[in-house]
Amino acid sequence: MNRLLITGAAGSLGRLLRERLAGYASVLRLSDIADLGQAGPGEELVPCDLAEAAAVDSLVEGCDGIVHLGGVSVENTFENILQSNFRGTYNLFDAARRHGAPRILFASSNHAIGFHRREDRLDGGSRQKPDSLYGLSKAYGENLGSYYFDKFGLENVAVRIGSCYPEPKDRRMLATWLSPDDFVRLVKRVFEATRVGHTVLYGASANREQWWDNGHAAFLGWVPQDSSEQFRAKVEAAHPRQDPDDPAVRFQGGSFAAAGHFED
Amino acid sequence: MNRLLITGAAGSLGRLLRERLAGYASVLRLSDIADLGQAGPGEELVPCDLAEAAAVDSLVEGCDGIVHLGGVSVENTFENILQSNFRGTYNLFDAARRHGAPRILFASSNHAIGFHRREDRLDGGSRQKPDSLYGLSKAYGENLGSYYFDKFGLENVAVRIGSCYPEPKDRRMLATWLSPDDFVRLVKRVFEATRVGHTVLYGASANREQWWDNGHAAFLGWVPQDSSEQFRAKVEAAHPRQDPDDPAVRFQGGSFAAAGHFED
Amino acid sequence: MNRLLITGAAGSLGRLLRERLAGYASVLRLSDIADLGQAGPGEELVPCDLAEAAAVDSLVEGCDGIVHLGGVSVENTFENILQSNFRGTYNLFDAARRHGAPRILFASSNHAIGFHRREDRLDGGSRQKPDSLYGLSKAYGENLGSYYFDKFGLENVAVRIGSCYPEPKDRRMLATWLSPDDFVRLVKRVFEATRVGHTVLYGASANREQWWDNGHAAFLGWVPQDSSEQFRAKVEAAHPRQDPDDPAVRFQGGSFAAAGHFED
Amino acid sequence: MNRLLITGAAGSLGRLLRERLAGYASVLRLSDIADLGQAGPGEELVPCDLAEAAAVDSLVEGCDGIVHLGGVSVENTFENILQSNFRGTYNLFDAARRHGAPRILFASSNHAIGFHRREDRLDGGSRQKPDSLYGLSKAYGENLGSYYFDKFGLENVAVRIGSCYPEPKDRRMLATWLSPDDFVRLVKRVFEATRVGHTVLYGASANREQWWDNGHAAFLGWVPQDSSEQFRAKVEAAHPRQDPDDPAVRFQGGSFAAAGHFED
Amino acid sequence: MNRLLITGAAGSLGRLLRERLAGYASVLRLSDIADLGQAGPGEELVPCDLAEAAAVDSLVEGCDGIVHLGGVSVENTFENILQSNFRGTYNLFDAARRHGAPRILFASSNHAIGFHRREDRLDGGSRQKPDSLYGLSKAYGENLGSYYFDKFGLENVAVRIGSCYPEPKDRRMLATWLSPDDFVRLVKRVFEATRVGHTVLYGASANREQWWDNGHAAFLGWVPQDSSEQFRAKVEAAHPRQDPDDPAVRFQGGSFAAAGHFED
Amino acid sequence: MNRLLITGAAGSLGRLLRERLAGYASVLRLSDIADLGQAGPGEELVPCDLAEAAAVDSLVEGCDGIVHLGGVSVENTFENILQSNFRGTYNLFDAARRHGAPRILFASSNHAIGFHRREDRLDGGSRQKPDSLYGLSKAYGENLGSYYFDKFGLENVAVRIGSCYPEPKDRRMLATWLSPDDFVRLVKRVFEATRVGHTVLYGASANREQWWDNGHAAFLGWVPQDSSEQFRAKVEAAHPRQDPDDPAVRFQGGSFAAAGHFED
Repeated sequence: MNRLLITGAAGSLGRLLRERLAGYASVLRLSDIADLGQAGPGEELVPCDLAEAAAVDSLVEGCDGIVHLGGVSVENTFENILQSNFRGTYNLFDAARRHGAPRILFASSNHAIGFHRREDRLDGGSRQKPDSLYGLSKAYGENLGSYYFDKFGLENVAVRIGSCYPEPKDRRMLATWLSPDDFVRLVKRVFEATRVGHTVLYGASANREQWWDNGHAAFLGWVPQDSSEQFRAKVEAAHPRQDPDDPAVRFQGGSFAAAGHFED
Repeated sequence: MNRLLITGAAGSLGRLLRERLAGYASVLRLSDIADLGQAGPGEELVPCDLAEAAAVDSLVEGCDGIVHLGGVSVENTFENILQSNFRGTYNLFDAARRHGAPRILFASSNHAIGFHRREDRLDGGSRQKPDSLYGLSKAYGENLGSYYFDKFGLENVAVRIGSCYPEPKDRRMLATWLSPDDFVRLVKRVFEATRVGHTVLYGASANREQWWDNGHAAFLGWVPQDSSEQFRAKVEAAHPRQDPDDPAVRFQGGSFAAAGHFED
Repeated sequence: MNRLLITGAAGSLGRLLRERLAGYASVLRLSDIADLGQAGPGEELVPCDLAEAAAVDSLVEGCDGIVHLGGVSVENTFENILQSNFRGTYNLFDAARRHGAPRILFASSNHAIGFHRREDRLDGGSRQKPDSLYGLSKAYGENLGSYYFDKFGLENVAVRIGSCYPEPKDRRMLATWLSPDDFVRLVKRVFEATRVGHTVLYGASANREQWWDNGHAAFLGWVPQDSSEQFRAKVEAAHPRQDPDDPAVRFQGGSFAAAGHFED
Repeated sequence: MNRLLITGAAGSLGRLLRERLAGYASVLRLSDIADLGQAGPGEELVPCDLAEAAAVDSLVEGCDGIVHLGGVSVENTFENILQSNFRGTYNLFDAARRHGAPRILFASSNHAIGFHRREDRLDGGSRQKPDSLYGLSKAYGENLGSYYFDKFGLENVAVRIGSCYPEPKDRRMLATWLSPDDFVRLVKRVFEATRVGHTVLYGASANREQWWDNGHAAFLGWVPQDSSEQFRAKVEAAHPRQDPDDPAVRFQGGSFAAAGHFED
Repeated sequence: MNRLLITGAAGSLGRLLRERLAGYASVLRLSDIADLGQAGPGEELVPCDLAEAAAVDSLVEGCDGIVHLGGVSVENTFENILQSNFRGTYNLFDAARRHGAPRILFASSNHAIGFHRREDRLDGGSRQKPDSLYGLSKAYGENLGSYYFDKFGLENVAVRIGSCYPEPKDRRMLATWLSPDDFVRLVKRVFEATRVGHTVLYGASANREQWWDNGHAAFLGWVPQDSSEQFRAKVEAAHPRQDPDDPAVRFQGGSFAAAGHFED
Repeated sequence: MNRLLITGAAGSLGRLLRERLAGYASVLRLSDIADLGQAGPGEELVPCDLAEAAAVDSLVEGCDGIVHLGGVSVENTFENILQSNFRGTYNLFDAARRHGAPRILFASSNHAIGFHRREDRLDGGSRQKPDSLYGLSKAYGENLGSYYFDKFGLENVAVRIGSCYPEPKDRRMLATWLSPDDFVRLVKRVFEATRVGHTVLYGASANREQWWDNGHAAFLGWVPQDSSEQFRAKVEAAHPRQDPDDPAVRFQGGSFAAAGHFED
């Protein structure tokens, strides 16, 4: 690949990919509204507010692939989410339409389906059930991908990321953990697979506790290799057992589902 | 019912309900950004831009039920849809949350599922597949209803309206036609049913050609009574046979699915 | 048919069938633990405690068909339900096995599935979800029918009766009402159909509000003719609107699902 | 329509359509290997052995639509079925491919699914389960339609005809009967519908006993109007009750499923 | 865990757990109607007839978790099964309701679904299809768990145990074998999982031949580690090939499904 | 096993099995219309044209199992496929019916389902969707197996073989590759499993890219051990990336689906 764009490159997922995808494309174009530091070898830094259509248009031009991590990544005010996620993701997809339709990996979230219950096994046919305004914006991003593929043939993959951290930080993440290595493997498969169409899948490692079935996306050839199991003892020691009736336990979205209306 | 709010009351569906729901509630509060004419008996006219949160808050206060028809109702620029539909529908639901959670009927559209093929029988489990930016905003509105019900218990029904006109205007509408009478019957059922939860259903009359199965919503007790069949001869005489391979025929969204990018 | 046995013939459903099935078989053998009054023409009265195996054996001998209404018909102590419904229904099926395997219609109940939510459309594949000890005994009776058919070829139909009364008595029954005429039609179809195998279906008339889909049993040829709609105005006038969040509204079993532990 | 071809026009279904479709197209081209009598007004008689590719090519040329009834219509030797049905139906579809891809209605049969059990409700997703060599050839014809549509865009509808006679002739036909009028209505819908794609549906009237669900094909707009119920008393009087365990009762294919190997 | 109750502790599964769960809870309360020998360290022996409600009430008091193995464990007379399994399991669940709702693992059995055919892949949505009176009592126990969870929030897991022995004893068990180690792992997961709700799953190891899919219960985090494959040669040498048409082969319940009525 | 027949033994799959199944049965009866060379120890060579019924009858007599690889194995003229595949496979199954119903493994093909899209995960319930006349003949062979099992109890397994070669030869085969070893393991399971009924499954190794789910056939105990992954670098180096919109990529059948009408 000649040039791969990563939006939200200053965030935690962005920094992770910046490091691990070094050298993966001839040029890594990194963008964020926050400071990106110094450009390393093979890096292009392009500061950009995703809410600015013209800026996004320039950002996307010349790219062969896009990993779209940018935007608000937790619950926030509707206004902030509207600008960064609703408007920003539209700007990105529409710029891609105008510039050769590079394949897009969209960082969706488990919060797009967070009001499903823990006992519900989800798969490719499970409906969206957002648990927050943030989750609503991710569900919208998935639908945007559906639309741009159906109408313009722009291939894209939306990944409902569980919890991508170096290690699981609480008991819930024993189920939802996506190891950085597995995430990197997934990113590569998305750009290397012969065809991806419009695919929505779940981003979790091969943990012992499983809520999601990616069978419908097995054609992509992504097989997670890691498991949260190695961290179980540590996590369980640090975090007391939870009440099974706590809404943060009953629903897949955890604390997002349990929270009330977001207050500034 | 004491006070029923109808947004978008100056539009074609709004005028239809204004006339036919006269007397259905003690007060009919009618709102639009366009001119609403003179208030009739039992009517309250409240001009409002749905994109203005404070105005919407006042609009919703004191209402026992809401029929939300307002916003952009065909394909348009992203900016217009963002303001009227994304922002406007959020404003409405969130105001309802603050004001006693009156039941809401949301006018969704077949364009939320318009990229399904004509041969695909849809039902309550069929996924969204928007055919336009407009359709995307309707899919979002349905998800907003899912979220507000799951988190706040705000009951709402999203109706994927086919084509609600006095009579079908082309061959496609022989399948998608929703008679005004059937629509009015549906509106009443939504407010009279003991419980509606969050329900998404299809708005079409008992036409001979059927694309959609509302079995999952049979608990509501809405049974359409009309059929487009009485207009078949007239419609077929006025409109030539279509090419079965035309995208406007292959996809349920018709011309919306077939259109390219919206140009101002 | 030569001899048709009706158990529970002194109960309300039993009296209904006694009257309406007069003449349907050469002999109507009526049984109950309660008083059955005087035998009419073509009637045989056989008092019987269903918990007595030997008595049930005699009761069943010589019958060509059985309508099993007997046993406890509302929530009760476990002990009473154990004797009348668990033991009694076993006695009946096992006696039928020994005596030529006459076809059995078993009066199951919506309480076998009463913890499904009102918004859930049930069909032939929906799982049992009992709302009471009574409902548990009905779920057991259905499984008994499954077992006796699979192992011994004894054909039987379990009817998950909604509310079989001359007219609906509250708002819930507008959905669950089974008219006496429709019930009688169903009984006849069960004994006249060429083959019934082991079939579980729902007993409700063609009401406007529908919770249950009998498509899987359409091969039986039972098509309900009546509707609760004629009683709507009367029922709604007599019974105030219900809180949509009341457990008796949220769950199909109504007050059975909402009740706590049964106390003598 | 200018010219409609009917193959198998000398058979019972063929004669029925010949009479009832008179005037439906400018020219009715009738073909059979058996004698077709005299050409009536608007009729073209084209004797043809379907196993002869060149003859079939000429037969199909110039036609705007085809109703393919030709071939062996009951169980027979493999050799006869191979020539008339396997080879013949291929010849017909392939000629249509070469001559402008006129829409085809293929007379499939319930015997393509005859080994499903009577208690199994079939729909558009039910798999083929042939009960005879004849049924195998019909399953093949359906697959031929799938192939010619997927590869060449040749639209076609396969109708799994139950029992198309002036009236039902035995108890099984109370469920499987397709009235001649309903069949004619279906033929017309197939040629008048805007799009048919490749559709397989069941050909039965609105009988009280129903084995098949055509919901997936509701987009075609065919709604059967007749019912076998008017003939029930007569049929039941003439035909004794059947043993529910008889293979001809247990399987939908009736006597075809129950029969052993066909012997000349 | 402070106190874990194991009923049926004198049976083969009970002895297995008694040994392997030593030390797992502060106190292991062991109960059976048969002799339990001497109490070991950390053990409490509480002889109890499960059919005695008062005794069961005392037995359950003070326990934090229950493994319910007690009752009749093979086919038997209806009377014995009624007392031990129907009455006994009710006594246990209802005592748990009164005493703080400790989580329950209920030893259900493959005989609750034994009349499914070997070629049928079962999962969490497969319906009960008991093959014996014993299997009926297990299906009832599962429904009891459904009821106590839905109404009283009492969490429980029903395990449809295949064949739990040190090693598989015949060819069928190559598919149904549950290794003691995998069973112990499952018991621990049931009590350690954050939430179990009401879950029914299948108890088989990771054998090469698989009849059951536990995907719906993957949220529990139980992943069997053993396989019967190591015993294949030995089993196949000792047991001749079976007739594929033998009912004990055709149905999953094996000899239970093939057996006739149980005779004392 | 005493005598195992392999048809098509001179083809590439046939030679593979001839070598690897040496000694598996007392006698390996090898048949083809092409030259089979010299008989090795334990081999019987029986040249045979599958289109000749009498010859096939002799060929099958005395065999305890059949691996049916014979017939045309790529796209060809209808005439050739009719003789070798339609007629030939019938001859084989019908001879088996007459000679003790030996179990048959039928080499079906992914081309029986080749018009499914790459993004569609197929399983045991996925319908046939042939991509060629060759694929049509394989779909027919599967239905023949369904018929002979339902009517005559002749057990058989149809394997929709992906690409069985020593190693994958192009990028598509990274998904469809069936290693020779995995194929041999499957052949053995088919003849060693206690019961196979009529089963259709997919023949692919445990490749990273997966299109097909064999869960429904897990009862057979076939678990592929190999993966194409070891060949990925080599294949990707030798074959350039493909256009994701190429019909040979969009459809599972690859070039078979993309090809036009077969021309001699």
